[in-house]
Amino acid sequence: MVSIEDVTAAHARIAPYIHKTPVMRSERLDNIVGCNLFFKCENLQKAGAFKSRGAVNAVFSLPEKRAKNGVATHSSGNHGAALARAAQLRGISSYIVVPNDAKQVKKSAILAYGAEIIECEPTLKAREDTLERVVLDTGAHFVHPYDDDLIIAGQGTAALELLAQVDELDSLVVPVGGGGLLAGSAIVAHPAIKIYAAEPEMADDAYRSFKTGKLVTQHIPRTICDGLQTTVGIRNFVIMRDKVSDVLLVSEQEVIDAMRLLWTRLKQVVEPSSAVTLAAVLRNQEAFSGKRVGLILTGGNVDPDNLPFRSSI
Amino acid sequence: MVSIEDVTAAHARIAPYIHKTPVMRSERLDNIVGCNLFFKCENLQKAGAFKSRGAVNAVFSLPEKRAKNGVATHSSGNHGAALARAAQLRGISSYIVVPNDAKQVKKSAILAYGAEIIECEPTLKAREDTLERVVLDTGAHFVHPYDDDLIIAGQGTAALELLAQVDELDSLVVPVGGGGLLAGSAIVAHPAIKIYAAEPEMADDAYRSFKTGKLVTQHIPRTICDGLQTTVGIRNFVIMRDKVSDVLLVSEQEVIDAMRLLWTRLKQVVEPSSAVTLAAVLRNQEAFSGKRVGLILTGGNVDPDNLPFRSSI
Repeated sequence: MVSIEDVTAAHARIAPYIHKTPVMRSERLDNIVGCNLFFKCENLQKAGAFKSRGAVNAVFSLPEKRAKNGVATHSSGNHGAALARAAQLRGISSYIVVPNDAKQVKKSAILAYGAEIIECEPTLKAREDTLERVVLDTGAHFVHPYDDDLIIAGQGTAALELLAQVDELDSLVVPVGGGGLLAGSAIVAHPAIKIYAAEPEMADDAYRSFKTGKLVTQHIPRTICDGLQTTVGIRNFVIMRDKVSDVLLVSEQEVIDAMRLLWTRLKQVVEPSSAVTLAAVLRNQEAFSGKRVGLILTGGNVDPDNLPFRSSI
Repeated sequence: MVSIEDVTAAHARIAPYIHKTPVMRSERLDNIVGCNLFFKCENLQKAGAFKSRGAVNAVFSLPEKRAKNGVATHSSGNHGAALARAAQLRGISSYIVVPNDAKQVKKSAILAYGAEIIECEPTLKAREDTLERVVLDTGAHFVHPYDDDLIIAGQGTAALELLAQVDELDSLVVPVGGGGLLAGSAIVAHPAIKIYAAEPEMADDAYRSFKTGKLVTQHIPRTICDGLQTTVGIRNFVIMRDKVSDVLLVSEQEVIDAMRLLWTRLKQVVEPSSAVTLAAVLRNQEAFSGKRVGLILTGGNVDPDNLPFRSSI
């Protein structure tokens, strides 16, 4: 299992290639919510998301022999762009398998970092089959988006920084998709700090896994939080089960409301997947009342032409 | 005329009540533009705009006797909210004259700071007449939005901070509406730093005043840059004529393109009035090539339901 020393080592490894992102606050938002909120702005991270941390850690940890044929993954989102960027920084190839219905803006971001894109049908099976073929053809090393110790250690560096930037946090609220960021955060936080996972009701596999103690691997999510559609990985689930206080569910409308509040009050336009944390605090105000609460704003890659609240309300 | 010492004094006076805003950069944006851009993020300022600086300086400079009946102004924008906030901080009343077609979101921001709103017809004459009546009725002190030494000194503190945060700037690009920020910035910058004003073609009074040497006071602006619709003040014009290298015009479409670039690359959603600076640099790339360029992002009060590029492209 990943240790806090792994996260510290990851932080030293990735520091030259990532931003130490700022922590932002808003008095007016604190007044609305009734507690003290500290936002770790990974939306301002390189490539626009915390995924840069894990990707750089994974790519720069590879021995020369494993790295020389490049890296590969399947992702239409931030992990794909982050891995492409990390590979470019190390000077190796990257191969990103992307469903053929992915938005052009997402593909452009991946291409901008010099990756080769391989399109496939938009099903999990097609993704996995295509990735397997790419790995066989190229000899590239597969970097899993979350169920990977190096990725978990890399993502944990965001919370590591936050805990150094802000004293005496009572709790930490982190979105859960595959669980890389959640697991990494749980590893670095002192046991006195309560860790909460925030998840959309429409993609509640982490909630059901946590409540039943049995990992849910099959589900069909339908949420505007496109970064949280994956199911929790097994490594991530084990850490979550041990260290997380609760999984807090939020509705799609609560996500939109939180996204708008972050926009108008904090002046940060974040992805719906990032807004789940504030939505979870708003829905559980009594639990957080008067507390010092850290929230990780995970990504800022919001397409101006595709705001989720335009089409849904 | 306002001196650099006035700006330094203003900075000490307002420091407890404003944010020292961060300077942000984007490698990808630098590559697009071909120079090194340093963005002073006044969009993250208290009340969402640099106007907080001048307003706090003006309100906290008033002797007790002048302050006791409160302050007044006419503004449907950031100056109104900033003045209301400054008055609330000092514990005095504020009266803000607002045209009756102003958006509810703007009025709500002003009301949230405890101001009294007085509505009037949406003409300059009605604004001035209404303000005069308010001042006569209440004894409040009128704080002009830009043609005022204390306001100019206060706004100059943004550039003062920027110049302390970033070494060896070659030039500074500042939006011009009434000219308060421009004049304040020009006062604090070393003469070796070129000062450029950026202005929409559709509100080109500063440009015409600068080129002819004769202050244009009458014009009918029609621009999405709602913060830049005012004509330059006389104090501001005198400073501009002495210290500004050039006034750079930009089209409405260039403003929109720049706003979108700031959104997608810098992850900052700024008002169109703020995006004019990047638009001006993009339009004059050869002049800025390879240079270190400071830009002030003046405000971040963008209504999620009224993005300018939604309706115009």
